[in-house]
Amino acid sequence: MARHIAVVGATGAVGQEFIRVLEQREFPCEKITFLASARSAGKTLRFRGRDHTIAELREDSFTGVDLALFSAGAAVSRKFAPIAVKAGAVVVDNSSAFRMDPEVPLVTPEVNPEDIRKHKGIIANPNCSTIIMVVPVFPLYRANRIQRLVVSTYQAASGAGYQAMLELQQQARDVLEGRPVEKKVLPHQIAFNLFSHNSRIGENGYNEEEMKMVKETRKMFHDDAIQITATCVRVPVLRAHSEAINITFEKPMTEARVREILAKAPGVRLVDDRERNYFPMPLESSEQDDVYTGRIRQDISQPDGRGIDLFVSGDQLRKGAALNAVQIAELLN
Amino acid sequence: MARHIAVVGATGAVGQEFIRVLEQREFPCEKITFLASARSAGKTLRFRGRDHTIAELREDSFTGVDLALFSAGAAVSRKFAPIAVKAGAVVVDNSSAFRMDPEVPLVTPEVNPEDIRKHKGIIANPNCSTIIMVVPVFPLYRANRIQRLVVSTYQAASGAGYQAMLELQQQARDVLEGRPVEKKVLPHQIAFNLFSHNSRIGENGYNEEEMKMVKETRKMFHDDAIQITATCVRVPVLRAHSEAINITFEKPMTEARVREILAKAPGVRLVDDRERNYFPMPLESSEQDDVYTGRIRQDISQPDGRGIDLFVSGDQLRKGAALNAVQIAELLN
Repeated sequence: MARHIAVVGATGAVGQEFIRVLEQREFPCEKITFLASARSAGKTLRFRGRDHTIAELREDSFTGVDLALFSAGAAVSRKFAPIAVKAGAVVVDNSSAFRMDPEVPLVTPEVNPEDIRKHKGIIANPNCSTIIMVVPVFPLYRANRIQRLVVSTYQAASGAGYQAMLELQQQARDVLEGRPVEKKVLPHQIAFNLFSHNSRIGENGYNEEEMKMVKETRKMFHDDAIQITATCVRVPVLRAHSEAINITFEKPMTEARVREILAKAPGVRLVDDRERNYFPMPLESSEQDDVYTGRIRQDISQPDGRGIDLFVSGDQLRKGAALNAVQIAELLN
Repeated sequence: MARHIAVVGATGAVGQEFIRVLEQREFPCEKITFLASARSAGKTLRFRGRDHTIAELREDSFTGVDLALFSAGAAVSRKFAPIAVKAGAVVVDNSSAFRMDPEVPLVTPEVNPEDIRKHKGIIANPNCSTIIMVVPVFPLYRANRIQRLVVSTYQAASGAGYQAMLELQQQARDVLEGRPVEKKVLPHQIAFNLFSHNSRIGENGYNEEEMKMVKETRKMFHDDAIQITATCVRVPVLRAHSEAINITFEKPMTEARVREILAKAPGVRLVDDRERNYFPMPLESSEQDDVYTGRIRQDISQPDGRGIDLFVSGDQLRKGAALNAVQIAELLN
């Protein structure tokens, strides 16, 4: 039972969502400490009807803390998560710092909740695009092993933080009013535009976001043989990521069976009305817990019946980050 | 040599682009007639420095016309294209009316210019998403037969016409100013949102736009064995379509060979700078002739070396419609 919770990076887009999710889920907690950089220290945040003063994140910030929810970037996590663990806290870390560490469980509760038990103080929360993919894909994988995934993402500005969301809105205003567009957070204009995900490109030509989808899925599925290629793209949407997912199963798979499995899958909401042409949209999946899933169809390019196409959309800040982390913490209770 | 050109649907988004493309390419023409619905008749359009009065499209509109460029929807084409042909004109039709007619050549000049010779009066212009895909894909296909394509599109508002472009802008204004959003042209809010392409869904769960990409590619490649699956999505972008394309070749294919082929491919512009994270973007491919092509990388999900991933972006109104049609007409001259 987490009596004293610390939220590290409380003023960021994910930090703010942590507060909302903890409130909405009535997460058991006797005391909460909001930690941020010196710049935000002294400001207040409201939680359960009371104002809490933000403290500066320091080495002695974790005394008495049972559970620390980190979302302040990989550098902060690398430095402070071990300190929090030493002080006796369990850390659920939203950064990429420990995700691929073999000693650290990487968990989506709908996929591999059992891995939580192996933790040594830190549990890593997967990348947002990965979570939104695996929630609908894993129940299918369990029914019929998946050999290959081809995924294209349509990622919201929120993945680059709160300032990127404001930048999208400001740029849209500027474009509409014929003013020059300023780029501060994102490397290219995002309003009325889209661009390849702005993470570093590796030797193999994939960017970091794409490789996260490959490696994190393999780790959570405990299956290094699953083949994945991803193209990650930022689109002018505020806070929900969408993904077109093409699946190759080991054995033939029917559309009807996929629909049957996904209708019962935890964390999945079927939005798949062909007659009304009504499918998952980021506007509707925003601020929702479930990954909206639709466009379920037999892939006609795989005549052996082993292919299925899906289109999904899930809130990047909620299931893609804060909600998943709080669900991990709930499994610890 | 086309002495008298008629533009049918002259006031639409593609019609307007026809005018610009004919001017810019100094297309040989002694007389031009702009045809539209009764609603637009009497208005004027400027062409090569002179105003031309728009005439109402009628059965007797094509007397003396050598070349008729149609872009007024399939119903108008079905009715009036045969009338224009009977009057002695060659029709280049931008609608879907005749594309799959075995008697009508369907042509992308970079792919199958030789098919033009078989025409019996009508030549069909392919769907915009198909054109933007085949321009970079066909030269690769010619070097190493392609077995399968998995494509996800990021389609601009312009594909739904000029009113849809205005709707995107108006909705963005309304969202930013906190006003309710009105939907007139598109079925769902497009500003700060995206949705599955709003064409009718067939029995197999694919929408018409997706099936166009499958069938039209097969027809132009003269290869019914090429396997294609597409997921078509509308995004809040004004006038250029982007596509993530995953390719499976018959034989192993290297990234270097793909780059070499595409660097010389007509209608293709390589935009593929990993260090600067600079790749095709609709903002930059807009109002350009070439299909911007990048994110060229060996597909790590196909360890036999037969996979390549691409990301492309091309102007929907230009190469996706008016430019391709005028290029067809140029081949007739």
